[in-house]
Amino acid sequence: MSSTNIMRIAVDAMGGDKGPAEVAQGVHAAARASNSRYLLVGDPVVLEPALARLAPVCANIEIVPALQVIEMDDPPATALKRKPDASLVVAARLVKERKADALVTIANTGAAMAVSLLSWGRIKGVDRPAIAVPLPSLKGTVVLLDAGATVDCDPNNLYEFAIMGSIYAEQVLGIPNPRVGLVSNGEEEIKGNALVKRTHALLLQNLQGHAPFHFIGNVEGRDIFRGNVDVAVCDGFVGNVVLKTGEGVAEMMLQMLREELNSKMWMKPLVAPLRPSLRRVRTRIDYAERGGAPLLGVNGICIIGHGRSDHYAVANACRAAERAAQHTLIETIRQRICDTPPPPPEPEPRGA
Amino acid sequence: MSSTNIMRIAVDAMGGDKGPAEVAQGVHAAARASNSRYLLVGDPVVLEPALARLAPVCANIEIVPALQVIEMDDPPATALKRKPDASLVVAARLVKERKADALVTIANTGAAMAVSLLSWGRIKGVDRPAIAVPLPSLKGTVVLLDAGATVDCDPNNLYEFAIMGSIYAEQVLGIPNPRVGLVSNGEEEIKGNALVKRTHALLLQNLQGHAPFHFIGNVEGRDIFRGNVDVAVCDGFVGNVVLKTGEGVAEMMLQMLREELNSKMWMKPLVAPLRPSLRRVRTRIDYAERGGAPLLGVNGICIIGHGRSDHYAVANACRAAERAAQHTLIETIRQRICDTPPPPPEPEPRGA
Repeated sequence: MSSTNIMRIAVDAMGGDKGPAEVAQGVHAAARASNSRYLLVGDPVVLEPALARLAPVCANIEIVPALQVIEMDDPPATALKRKPDASLVVAARLVKERKADALVTIANTGAAMAVSLLSWGRIKGVDRPAIAVPLPSLKGTVVLLDAGATVDCDPNNLYEFAIMGSIYAEQVLGIPNPRVGLVSNGEEEIKGNALVKRTHALLLQNLQGHAPFHFIGNVEGRDIFRGNVDVAVCDGFVGNVVLKTGEGVAEMMLQMLREELNSKMWMKPLVAPLRPSLRRVRTRIDYAERGGAPLLGVNGICIIGHGRSDHYAVANACRAAERAAQHTLIETIRQRICDTPPPPPEPEPRGA
Repeated sequence: MSSTNIMRIAVDAMGGDKGPAEVAQGVHAAARASNSRYLLVGDPVVLEPALARLAPVCANIEIVPALQVIEMDDPPATALKRKPDASLVVAARLVKERKADALVTIANTGAAMAVSLLSWGRIKGVDRPAIAVPLPSLKGTVVLLDAGATVDCDPNNLYEFAIMGSIYAEQVLGIPNPRVGLVSNGEEEIKGNALVKRTHALLLQNLQGHAPFHFIGNVEGRDIFRGNVDVAVCDGFVGNVVLKTGEGVAEMMLQMLREELNSKMWMKPLVAPLRPSLRRVRTRIDYAERGGAPLLGVNGICIIGHGRSDHYAVANACRAAERAAQHTLIETIRQRICDTPPPPPEPEPRGA
């Protein structure tokens, strides 16, 4: 956190499907509504004219030059060494050197993970990082983690994800005392694969004395989208499958709706006035709208936006980064993980 | 298969949320359009008047009395012993005693699995059973397996699921040379958790000589609903999460659509004529419409319908059972598993 309490947000301007001008527009929108300082990292030849087109001039946006770009097919693990002047690497370095309080990127997720992990290391006490994705539900935003950072997990990893996800939901999304659920194939305690059963038993045992989060038990995929849980915890493989299944079903339904409502000429005058409502449904379910996913567990704030983010989504990701920095997210995670007694010897899972 | 080539389908009439009359109505619809014989198993006091209300009288429906019912909270594993006269148990016995060629039930899935597995055993050579669920996609039905029968799998289990799912898609759903994909967190070969990487390596190695199915590599959740794959293979935990996530997202979107399109009075006259189109979208995505999920790997044909199946879904499940019996599904699986050489010593996964 900056000593003057004005947050400094480093934004990797060169990532994303829509190009740097779109990122600049998103940052401009966020900067107008805030007194944070924005460090827009990328090629000045592209970024200066992009910013110049946006009115009014925002004095709190500064361009930081970085002339390399990490492409989608660059191997993430070597990006840091091979492209030291890439916009993502420069932005991460600003955070490491305490010249910025948070990093926002819509570069590829693998590169964002590798660069922030290698530049900053992990928070002391955290074993593995997790990507916490905000998902839509009938009752507001639900945090799903891990969405792909750590595909093979042990119960202790999931336990740490629960702590980190709970803190993020409370501090950044403003959900008081968030309900934490374990994603399983049924709500009953005996349901789950070996990992989930072991984790469930560990959580119940751990929570008897000291409760670092509000555990409500197993939840199913349906519970996430009904909003019956605030933080849904799973390994990175399962989380990624949930995320992409959700995107796939949403995409399929929108396409079917389009086909049905465009199938007859006589429908057009009826559908036209309804378009704003149909668009609103689309907006409500669009993950890209929800403002970026934090990579939790690394020793710095890193908010990763969807590759197809538009300026609106970039602005949301910037606001999430500001809130995370204001709330000293990293300090809270470090303290909560340190304060939590190490897990006891693993109990026998019930139903085993 | 019956020697006269007329299929005999035993239907557990006492399961399902909508009650026996709904099941009877579904069976009646299937029986009218077929020369199969239907054995409607359950309480005659309920079933006789239910059938009597349906015109025309179908001579190919016969009521087989069974006076017990397996409730949702009966422990599945003991149902067979504790309720020998339950409709599900009697129907399974008809198949075992070769008085029926297939079983259809919309009872609870756990009970259906336990009863058919304990009554019939497994197909020789098959290690673990799998539930193959037909899912909607933009290009037709996709088979997902396992959807919950075997939550903890090894690579050989997934290999057998691929063989069985491929045969089911080809014989019963009529998809020629179905494309088989492995559900993963990315399409690249190096993606996956430990199980998926090991399975991918095993499949590639096994398929070099002898190809018992058409393997197209890893697929993501999105590929399922885009219809980029015909048979999606995963362990029962992941499959169940895919299924319930899909249901959850579909339910959420329909609810949001209802809220938006009912939010203003002026919309009503516009929306009213569009309702048939909106209903069609709902029907296209409704899993219950798609006709039941076979439990593959047990030594008999067992088609499990969704608990909330209506008569239309019951009729679809009956037709799936007929087709499976006509195509000698069990014989084909047995032969294909026996013909396939046992997997070689497991190779090192690539990217490990």
